[in-house]
Amino acid sequence: MPIADQPTTLVVLDLVGIFVFAISGGLVAVRKELDVFGVLMLAGITGLGGGFLRDVLIGAAPPASLSDWRYLAVPVAAGSLTFLYHPVLAKRETTVNVFDAFGLSVFCVAGALKALDYGLGPVPAALMGMVTGIGGGVVRDLLAGRVPVVFRGELYAIPALAGATVAVVGTRLDLPGNLVTVAAALVCLSWRLLAMFRRWQAPVARGPASV
Amino acid sequence: MPIADQPTTLVVLDLVGIFVFAISGGLVAVRKELDVFGVLMLAGITGLGGGFLRDVLIGAAPPASLSDWRYLAVPVAAGSLTFLYHPVLAKRETTVNVFDAFGLSVFCVAGALKALDYGLGPVPAALMGMVTGIGGGVVRDLLAGRVPVVFRGELYAIPALAGATVAVVGTRLDLPGNLVTVAAALVCLSWRLLAMFRRWQAPVARGPASV
Amino acid sequence: MPIADQPTTLVVLDLVGIFVFAISGGLVAVRKELDVFGVLMLAGITGLGGGFLRDVLIGAAPPASLSDWRYLAVPVAAGSLTFLYHPVLAKRETTVNVFDAFGLSVFCVAGALKALDYGLGPVPAALMGMVTGIGGGVVRDLLAGRVPVVFRGELYAIPALAGATVAVVGTRLDLPGNLVTVAAALVCLSWRLLAMFRRWQAPVARGPASV
Repeated sequence: MPIADQPTTLVVLDLVGIFVFAISGGLVAVRKELDVFGVLMLAGITGLGGGFLRDVLIGAAPPASLSDWRYLAVPVAAGSLTFLYHPVLAKRETTVNVFDAFGLSVFCVAGALKALDYGLGPVPAALMGMVTGIGGGVVRDLLAGRVPVVFRGELYAIPALAGATVAVVGTRLDLPGNLVTVAAALVCLSWRLLAMFRRWQAPVARGPASV
Repeated sequence: MPIADQPTTLVVLDLVGIFVFAISGGLVAVRKELDVFGVLMLAGITGLGGGFLRDVLIGAAPPASLSDWRYLAVPVAAGSLTFLYHPVLAKRETTVNVFDAFGLSVFCVAGALKALDYGLGPVPAALMGMVTGIGGGVVRDLLAGRVPVVFRGELYAIPALAGATVAVVGTRLDLPGNLVTVAAALVCLSWRLLAMFRRWQAPVARGPASV
Repeated sequence: MPIADQPTTLVVLDLVGIFVFAISGGLVAVRKELDVFGVLMLAGITGLGGGFLRDVLIGAAPPASLSDWRYLAVPVAAGSLTFLYHPVLAKRETTVNVFDAFGLSVFCVAGALKALDYGLGPVPAALMGMVTGIGGGVVRDLLAGRVPVVFRGELYAIPALAGATVAVVGTRLDLPGNLVTVAAALVCLSWRLLAMFRRWQAPVARGPASV
């Protein structure tokens, strides 16, 4: 995600993704009645946590977001906005969620490409793309004391994995980089938006979950 | 645990350990009514999480399991089986737990040996062996929203620490590697099985836990 | 925090910090009715977790505390004491909390300085100082199944961030190291103690936290 010498477009998309992820983290914190610091922390962790997890797992520590002040300023701004204006944001949750889908699409693709850069094979690279996309939300839910929503029916991780897979396959086929990036992000984005608006749910196991 | 050039026997044992750990993660996910993706994720994290934690802590990122497709295929298979056939598996929980004890034994020994390989001293290496054995289950319980069972009376971590300690001491005494591995794994396995079948419990603090 | 060649005073302060953090972790474990192993584990994770998190994030794995037996012996001692004498310790919670404030002050300063040593910029280094101070408590609360207290009104992280910031700024201004360390720790310590005794609380968001 946060690569220092990546082109401006990607940086902007990346920062937009961090911003909306951070807002989702801030909203969860407000609902859990955390204090202003808790709101800022959850905003930051939700915005940057996926990239942190990926970078620690692929051996790219310290995460690039720790070396670029914009990657820290954006979640602070998003968290402060959420703390102050959360009733407005909560009313526009659909808008927030659409932006969130953009963020997911950018993150899963950028995460997969960075993992490839670090020498991971195609399957782990696609997984790392998914981790980049969903990791922030998982840590957010852990810190807020709830089972990660991404594991509970919400169709969220599969679109991220699909986008990351397209990015990996396209790169391995030596297709033009811009094309691969856009196509992969669109796969994730459209799947996620369809799942949101048509209320697609991942299936739950049947039968008694006894014992 | 997952070392690329280790002998076939160890790889097979390792994959068996990942498989049974993944089943235990999948069963917890089914009981928590997570969706199919949550089941696969918990299966994967429970199977591989201990090794991930160890590798990140000893500076061996990216974890070896990310560079070998078998280490990713096994938890996917285990999670899918659990999703489909969880009523059968839940009925055979004793069998699952016996295999789980095998997994614990393999992981604690392999984890300790890998930590020694990376230059850690004997005490931290034994701890890292224990972390390899119990880490996946701890992360599984965190993600499933419950206090880790390993901290609540179940005698599980101490056998892992004992096995890891035997592995470290034997290696430091330059005893033959195969002998050390088998003896260390047997110490963990027999202690764990005895604890299971005799319902040994670790003691809880006495007196009022006030304030 | 745990740097092998740091002067004796710092090592002693560091070990004192680990000791009191470990006691706080042990007390939480006793209240949650964890077994003796859970008490020792929570003691160890609370005492060492902040440094672990920082070291993993700044790329300093394996953490220095894994290469020095004293850093492992201290939380074991603290956890054992807590397990045996928790009613006494719980009655002296104010004393424990004052020592905890000392620990926080040492950790946030030492953590920020170590992050600078590893080449991080001033803002991330200050953040890493805060993470070193609060990280152990956050992981403790996660493992004990509660939302981290540091996010819920308790004024704890801000003093740590302030102390870390003073340490970073002082170092960047090339002020004498001892002076910077003492001044930074005093900023954190006095703020934290004032917050404790005057019951200062961080603000919570206003308005309905609906949706």
